[in-house]
Amino acid sequence: MTKPKIPSGTRDFGVEEIAKRKYITSIIAQVFERNAYQPLETPAFEQLTTLIGKYGDEGDKLIFKILNNGLNEKNESKKEAIRADFDMLMAEGTSSDKITELALKYGLTIPFARYVVMNANTLIFPFKRYQMQPVWRADRPQKGRYREFWQCDADVVGVKSLTYDAELIIIYDDVFERLALRDTQVCINNRKILTGLAHYVGMQSELTAFTVILDKLDKIGWDSVCEQLITKGADAEKLEHLIKLMEQESDSQQVLDTLSELEAGDSMTQGITEMKQVIESIQALKPQSYTQVKLDISLARGLDYYTGMIVEVKNSNASGSIGGGGRYDQLTAIFGLKDMPGVGISFGLDRIYNLMEELELFPSDVTPAADLYVYASEPSADCLESVEIWRREGLIVEALYEKTKIDKVYKKAEVLGVKYVCIWDEETTSAAVSYKNIINGQRYTVDRDAIVANIKK
Amino acid sequence: MTKPKIPSGTRDFGVEEIAKRKYITSIIAQVFERNAYQPLETPAFEQLTTLIGKYGDEGDKLIFKILNNGLNEKNESKKEAIRADFDMLMAEGTSSDKITELALKYGLTIPFARYVVMNANTLIFPFKRYQMQPVWRADRPQKGRYREFWQCDADVVGVKSLTYDAELIIIYDDVFERLALRDTQVCINNRKILTGLAHYVGMQSELTAFTVILDKLDKIGWDSVCEQLITKGADAEKLEHLIKLMEQESDSQQVLDTLSELEAGDSMTQGITEMKQVIESIQALKPQSYTQVKLDISLARGLDYYTGMIVEVKNSNASGSIGGGGRYDQLTAIFGLKDMPGVGISFGLDRIYNLMEELELFPSDVTPAADLYVYASEPSADCLESVEIWRREGLIVEALYEKTKIDKVYKKAEVLGVKYVCIWDEETTSAAVSYKNIINGQRYTVDRDAIVANIKK
Repeated sequence: MTKPKIPSGTRDFGVEEIAKRKYITSIIAQVFERNAYQPLETPAFEQLTTLIGKYGDEGDKLIFKILNNGLNEKNESKKEAIRADFDMLMAEGTSSDKITELALKYGLTIPFARYVVMNANTLIFPFKRYQMQPVWRADRPQKGRYREFWQCDADVVGVKSLTYDAELIIIYDDVFERLALRDTQVCINNRKILTGLAHYVGMQSELTAFTVILDKLDKIGWDSVCEQLITKGADAEKLEHLIKLMEQESDSQQVLDTLSELEAGDSMTQGITEMKQVIESIQALKPQSYTQVKLDISLARGLDYYTGMIVEVKNSNASGSIGGGGRYDQLTAIFGLKDMPGVGISFGLDRIYNLMEELELFPSDVTPAADLYVYASEPSADCLESVEIWRREGLIVEALYEKTKIDKVYKKAEVLGVKYVCIWDEETTSAAVSYKNIINGQRYTVDRDAIVANIKK
Repeated sequence: MTKPKIPSGTRDFGVEEIAKRKYITSIIAQVFERNAYQPLETPAFEQLTTLIGKYGDEGDKLIFKILNNGLNEKNESKKEAIRADFDMLMAEGTSSDKITELALKYGLTIPFARYVVMNANTLIFPFKRYQMQPVWRADRPQKGRYREFWQCDADVVGVKSLTYDAELIIIYDDVFERLALRDTQVCINNRKILTGLAHYVGMQSELTAFTVILDKLDKIGWDSVCEQLITKGADAEKLEHLIKLMEQESDSQQVLDTLSELEAGDSMTQGITEMKQVIESIQALKPQSYTQVKLDISLARGLDYYTGMIVEVKNSNASGSIGGGGRYDQLTAIFGLKDMPGVGISFGLDRIYNLMEELELFPSDVTPAADLYVYASEPSADCLESVEIWRREGLIVEALYEKTKIDKVYKKAEVLGVKYVCIWDEETTSAAVSYKNIINGQRYTVDRDAIVANIKK
């Protein structure tokens, strides 16, 4: 006998969780769909070679790899080869296709890129897809961090127009408005501005280091960021000037104007132009935004593949981001398809869920209950036929066909949130069915054909 | 650069496949829900110990195991222990928690049993749940057999009444009626009748062998089944008598009457009583069934945990079953919870999908298309605001913001199945928006506020 246990970092979802998750995902899906994004689903696992090396060294370690089947090999030399590969895996952590060929999806973007490359000949561009699926990471589980969690992504590829960047920001805005998730900030920046900033402080040849250090700002604060940047060669005086600028709470236009006065190279100029255009389009699309859309030039996202706008969504009531994304010009190049620019965003379903739960934002009637609870310890043919007819006419009918006490029946119905209970005893016929509203105690006796209309009204 | 490849036996689902799959699953879900089954979702992977040993030796081999992370161990003695376990895995195929602790879900029933045991204290019985999720098997992929495929299960536990067995048969019937999947047979039998048959031919001590051989009937035919049964000790004369009975195309009642005349022990008597009751309830629930519900005493399902009714769904146009299930009295006992009887059924989504595709049973309008295709090479603020307003009012609007030829725009809209195209050029304002019905060529010019009503009507 095995004592049952659920893997750490994973969850079962019962009726209430599913209803609440669906409440969120159906709003996201509807907004995606109105923007003409179409659904896509990719398998739970990919070839390991598709995923490996795409998420940095730290990411690679968190990929769940699937053990090849049929390892109990008879052939001695094959056996030796497998064992040698296993030793290498143990020694260096590098995996081999003799041990593992498949791995669980770590994020949705790389499988999407794989799909685009494999189907490039038949897709109509711009190709807009959305994807809502679980991903898996062998992370240490902790509050709000899971080993199985859901991403809801929308990406458009095959287009350069920055209007799509703005469109995606408005998708964030529309979704959070419909979820009534107040105090949400959609922070945007541009990789080219970051390049300009690195240039300005004299770290143009250390761009990755600059970005990685800046990305830690939320965790370690300005003092440590400065210290680390100076160690990497940043000009202390210029850095100080920059930090003042970054800390200023001024409007996006002003920040961009100030930036344009810095001596920060062509990238900065281009980044400013792009940001201005995106911000203009955002304002045109939805002059009164629900969320606070703001330029945050200290925003630096870790992922290497972003080349233009980057975005991250925060909420004052949550630590960590609840969404993020950006523009990439060469994502599919890793699979051999060049010149396929794109831009995408992602919603972190689990974090949004936890936040909405905490803020009590779910409608009270989100979890469905049965319409009618029928009790018949030995159901007559007449009873069974009636139950099936009611169901086919759209009523959700729970039925208990086992002998129990009547007060237990009422108790079960109450706990399940069912409003009407019908005790179908030996004398009941379909011509005169009695049922009770257990909230106000009112009783009714009607012909079975009247029940659906009576209860649904 | 990696050449992109999708793992064998898995599939990407694009907009059309998703729409068609949803067409099926939403009908199944609706029927489940009307019967007061509530949704449940369990993680993609389970502890390996939860799954192993539950599906027979052949099943165990097909379980996808996940390689433990962090195998590049520094400590020499731990390293040795891991290596020893790996050698054992290679030699005997038995796995060890040092190499693999997690495994992908092989079916939905065992994780459901795990859930019931873990939550037994808080569930209201009868507990009715449905689950529609992918499962994974390291099977050899072939036509209609995948390594990632979907099951749609409904189970009710905590109840002994056979009325629930009948209810589940009617769920099959309701679903196939709504899918308009003709020529579907829902075949039922009872494990106790099988026990009786084994008893009758003198194989009462070889029940498993009897069932396993009989289960191969569809593949190997009566002659081979007989041969194998006789080798295992079946009485040739009685077997011949039995086969005649099984091959008879008579109605269920007649078959049961004939069976009751055999000298086949108490199990047979009990099995007959149970089947009569189930058949009666089926007829009471839905006197005019859509599918052909029939007793098939040669039906034997491989899985060990069934104890009462067994069911398998076939369609004349498909090889193999498109669904199956049965009653189990001790499923949760493997996890330490006794006396939790239950009954469940499963729909094989992928096989039903393939069948419906072949029979052209999907509605032609199942794949959604955008309502309006807007082209604006350099969109004005007025244009962007209009697009966003239309979307918020419920219109699905595709928008192309990159310079291209007008005839290409029409071509794209046509391929995507969009009926209306709006070319928003430099002179367009929201007071007079022109659009064209590309099916009949008709053109309209209206105020932007009139567009949604015009197009939706």
